[in-house]
Amino acid sequence: MNIFTIKNNRENKKIIDLGNGITIGGNEFTVISGPCAVEGEEQIETSAKALSDMGIRILRGGAFKPRTSPYTFQGLGFEGLRLLKNAGQRYKMKIVSEIMDPRDLDASYDYVDIIQIGSRNMQNYTLLKEAGKLDKPVLLKRGMASTIEEWLMAAEYIASEGNENIILCERGIRTFEKYTRNTLDLTVVPIIKELANLPIIIDPSHGTGRKELIRPATRAAVAIGADGVMIETHPNPSEALSDGKQSLDIEEMKTVLLDIESIKDCISKLNS
Amino acid sequence: MNIFTIKNNRENKKIIDLGNGITIGGNEFTVISGPCAVEGEEQIETSAKALSDMGIRILRGGAFKPRTSPYTFQGLGFEGLRLLKNAGQRYKMKIVSEIMDPRDLDASYDYVDIIQIGSRNMQNYTLLKEAGKLDKPVLLKRGMASTIEEWLMAAEYIASEGNENIILCERGIRTFEKYTRNTLDLTVVPIIKELANLPIIIDPSHGTGRKELIRPATRAAVAIGADGVMIETHPNPSEALSDGKQSLDIEEMKTVLLDIESIKDCISKLNS
Amino acid sequence: MNIFTIKNNRENKKIIDLGNGITIGGNEFTVISGPCAVEGEEQIETSAKALSDMGIRILRGGAFKPRTSPYTFQGLGFEGLRLLKNAGQRYKMKIVSEIMDPRDLDASYDYVDIIQIGSRNMQNYTLLKEAGKLDKPVLLKRGMASTIEEWLMAAEYIASEGNENIILCERGIRTFEKYTRNTLDLTVVPIIKELANLPIIIDPSHGTGRKELIRPATRAAVAIGADGVMIETHPNPSEALSDGKQSLDIEEMKTVLLDIESIKDCISKLNS
Amino acid sequence: MNIFTIKNNRENKKIIDLGNGITIGGNEFTVISGPCAVEGEEQIETSAKALSDMGIRILRGGAFKPRTSPYTFQGLGFEGLRLLKNAGQRYKMKIVSEIMDPRDLDASYDYVDIIQIGSRNMQNYTLLKEAGKLDKPVLLKRGMASTIEEWLMAAEYIASEGNENIILCERGIRTFEKYTRNTLDLTVVPIIKELANLPIIIDPSHGTGRKELIRPATRAAVAIGADGVMIETHPNPSEALSDGKQSLDIEEMKTVLLDIESIKDCISKLNS
Repeated sequence: MNIFTIKNNRENKKIIDLGNGITIGGNEFTVISGPCAVEGEEQIETSAKALSDMGIRILRGGAFKPRTSPYTFQGLGFEGLRLLKNAGQRYKMKIVSEIMDPRDLDASYDYVDIIQIGSRNMQNYTLLKEAGKLDKPVLLKRGMASTIEEWLMAAEYIASEGNENIILCERGIRTFEKYTRNTLDLTVVPIIKELANLPIIIDPSHGTGRKELIRPATRAAVAIGADGVMIETHPNPSEALSDGKQSLDIEEMKTVLLDIESIKDCISKLNS
Repeated sequence: MNIFTIKNNRENKKIIDLGNGITIGGNEFTVISGPCAVEGEEQIETSAKALSDMGIRILRGGAFKPRTSPYTFQGLGFEGLRLLKNAGQRYKMKIVSEIMDPRDLDASYDYVDIIQIGSRNMQNYTLLKEAGKLDKPVLLKRGMASTIEEWLMAAEYIASEGNENIILCERGIRTFEKYTRNTLDLTVVPIIKELANLPIIIDPSHGTGRKELIRPATRAAVAIGADGVMIETHPNPSEALSDGKQSLDIEEMKTVLLDIESIKDCISKLNS
Repeated sequence: MNIFTIKNNRENKKIIDLGNGITIGGNEFTVISGPCAVEGEEQIETSAKALSDMGIRILRGGAFKPRTSPYTFQGLGFEGLRLLKNAGQRYKMKIVSEIMDPRDLDASYDYVDIIQIGSRNMQNYTLLKEAGKLDKPVLLKRGMASTIEEWLMAAEYIASEGNENIILCERGIRTFEKYTRNTLDLTVVPIIKELANLPIIIDPSHGTGRKELIRPATRAAVAIGADGVMIETHPNPSEALSDGKQSLDIEEMKTVLLDIESIKDCISKLNS
Repeated sequence: MNIFTIKNNRENKKIIDLGNGITIGGNEFTVISGPCAVEGEEQIETSAKALSDMGIRILRGGAFKPRTSPYTFQGLGFEGLRLLKNAGQRYKMKIVSEIMDPRDLDASYDYVDIIQIGSRNMQNYTLLKEAGKLDKPVLLKRGMASTIEEWLMAAEYIASEGNENIILCERGIRTFEKYTRNTLDLTVVPIIKELANLPIIIDPSHGTGRKELIRPATRAAVAIGADGVMIETHPNPSEALSDGKQSLDIEEMKTVLLDIESIKDCISKLNS
């Protein structure tokens, strides 16, 4: 019987195995990075090379972009997924990308290693159930104003169809404060660890909307026990087609990686 | 050029014509009513008869239910739509029902007169665009924590595909207050009238989550200039499979209709 | 025993009697109006004359202004109260004005007929208790993010000291929506009627922050059963030292009064 | 000219010097601890001894308690302050305690080393200005739904009267999420560092409302660059008169101190 799969198994923590020794969950701290949107071959190749050179093994990039307005750049679609896959093969990186249309899941299957379900679609139950039928990990972002209970229930929609390889991603919630794009709710990390068996990562780019906050927020994410971070980077943030204000450049990302390594090491010793 | 269809035409107010002299927008105040979920033939027939007897000409009922948990009642699906259509034909009522899966739009086409897109799917752009390709009115509920701008942009997703027959529906927003299920944001009515050309109706059932608040909230909705209300009713609310706490029974609904008539009359005189 | 004075007596609705036949609560709908801030003798005299000419019998005006920044106009202080009292005497109007400092209560006693406690001080328990010791009505505004329970408990702080002449005033709550200054929570009116024995009025000026919304919001306030409204007016809103964007001019206020009269009449008939 | 004291001097970071080598700000990470409320001599003596034994040099304890209801325990008042001061003298600890009534500031002067202004009084401008006239540091908690700008402006009210020894304290904000008492907004730390010259500490007890979250939240607070934490402890949390659910016992506090030391050391190395 599959009622409350995630809650009932919460002692039995999931480790998502992506192959080639790349995992999410357990004792690892996983870094996912790449541009907000795939803009073209050169941009994604440059990104992938730079990120893999610094040891990052999962590449993100948006091909189907959920934009508030229908009249802004909507992403390159399947051409974007193809560019991602090529870059992933060349640099031995795994690919995570958002799919919005349940009808695109099959056609996307060969291009992505992790299917991302975005905040706006956290309660798109059609999409959740279809993703639940695949044998591919799902990265489920928290809705902008979704409670923890609703988020875990959204994960149950995936799990109830058979796919328990789910990674939760906190990306900031909507509050009255407007200095930041969202309010990053870091305390969900220990709460999720208590309530569920799933890995949880932090997206400090969307969570804050300000590039100068990514570094300190990432430090806190490691310290509070997150299983990873997903950080937007761009070879040239000031020219990004979307989200340039919350993207790091390559050098900044290197500094963040050094932070992560030190703090993760410190936390591991405290927990042992 | 179709950029900002809704905003650019805001002086040219839309009236949604459903046939048989049933319209939404303009000088009419439209009442939509029916149960939260279609539970069976007897329930929907009893509802339709009672509501049409009091002059209500649009019947609502959920066939595909977006529930927070995958393990609760999910609705009767197409069987529910069939029951709705039969009741609608017998009692000469138009049908509004929520569709969640873009792949169900074609198969639902013959059953519903207005396609409802629910709060959780307000930014499900796939669904919005597919609904935008149909020649059938769309009732677009505001997302739980969506700004007015995001809501109008969601309507633009529908309009940009060619379908400008959109009815906006305010159903309460998520705030810190927990006495009510949501906080009903009635001032959106004059704001929408200023910013857009679309009719806007109020859902006091979801907007408050408490049946005793439906009557006063409906009075306010008429007074503030809404184009209609959508109110959950049930032949026996205490036995409803969902949302019984926010459903009126038949007698209560009659009282609300009398209120609407008087206040609408009063407001019309003030505006003339 | 005085535990939960307000809740325990909720069947026994309070009518606040200000003398000269001026009351708040019961079957009356009370209109309070005047400028956000007292700016000088001419402004307040002009306001009082115009408002009393149209039948308004309670004059508001801020003498001590709680401003977010200490470097903006803070009000005229006791000189402002003196101007208010003079105008009140000349035009036979009662005066409501905000007091922020508990040490000012005694010195203000002779100037004001209703002591206003503002949103920022809703949980200033020192001030609440001191106001509770006076034999003068208190107008208690809801805090910007205060729950209904906290608001009623703040009223209990006043009542527990002996003063049960309390008027609640909803003035909008803080939410994620930024089109309006606040989100006016009109459904608190029937909720307060259910939970407490106190009159409740609506402040559509602060509640929306936009003058074009005052008229429709006032219509809704009457329809939903409020006991009154407090509306900011200014002889020349575009030159107001504060809150000009949410103030009506004199002619606009007259129109709103006509609306109130008609809708109140309509609602009274429905309730009888 | 004193306009925007705090913002204009933001490069010139304040270090609050409490004497005896106890400081807040700069390179120190300061731990403040003690019970939510002073309940009696034995409780406060036991707390002070245990905390000073582990090296904590600032003792907190509530004597005047701002409670939502007037009918719950309101604190021991000046007797509570006297107990705090005695304990502070015996164990060489500095005292921080909340003052709510501006008229109590003078009488409290000799008992407390830091005047705490609580969330409910963040915009009690009378209290802020009076505290600004004293030559004693002020710990200013963020309001429950106050923006960063409002918070800094509240600090300006203190500074504009001459007292620039202000410590900001984030204690969680009010959001839709109800699993935690508040949502701890840790990213304010780097934001405050950017916008102001004041030290900022974190209160994970109120910020989460759940004792099991204090340890991970404290780890994150150190990592994100806070200048300290204020943590509620109680010799026997299950018997605390208030806030027992968010208080650590003595042994748990020791573990948290070890965490702080390690992570602070790690962060200092990264910053050097």
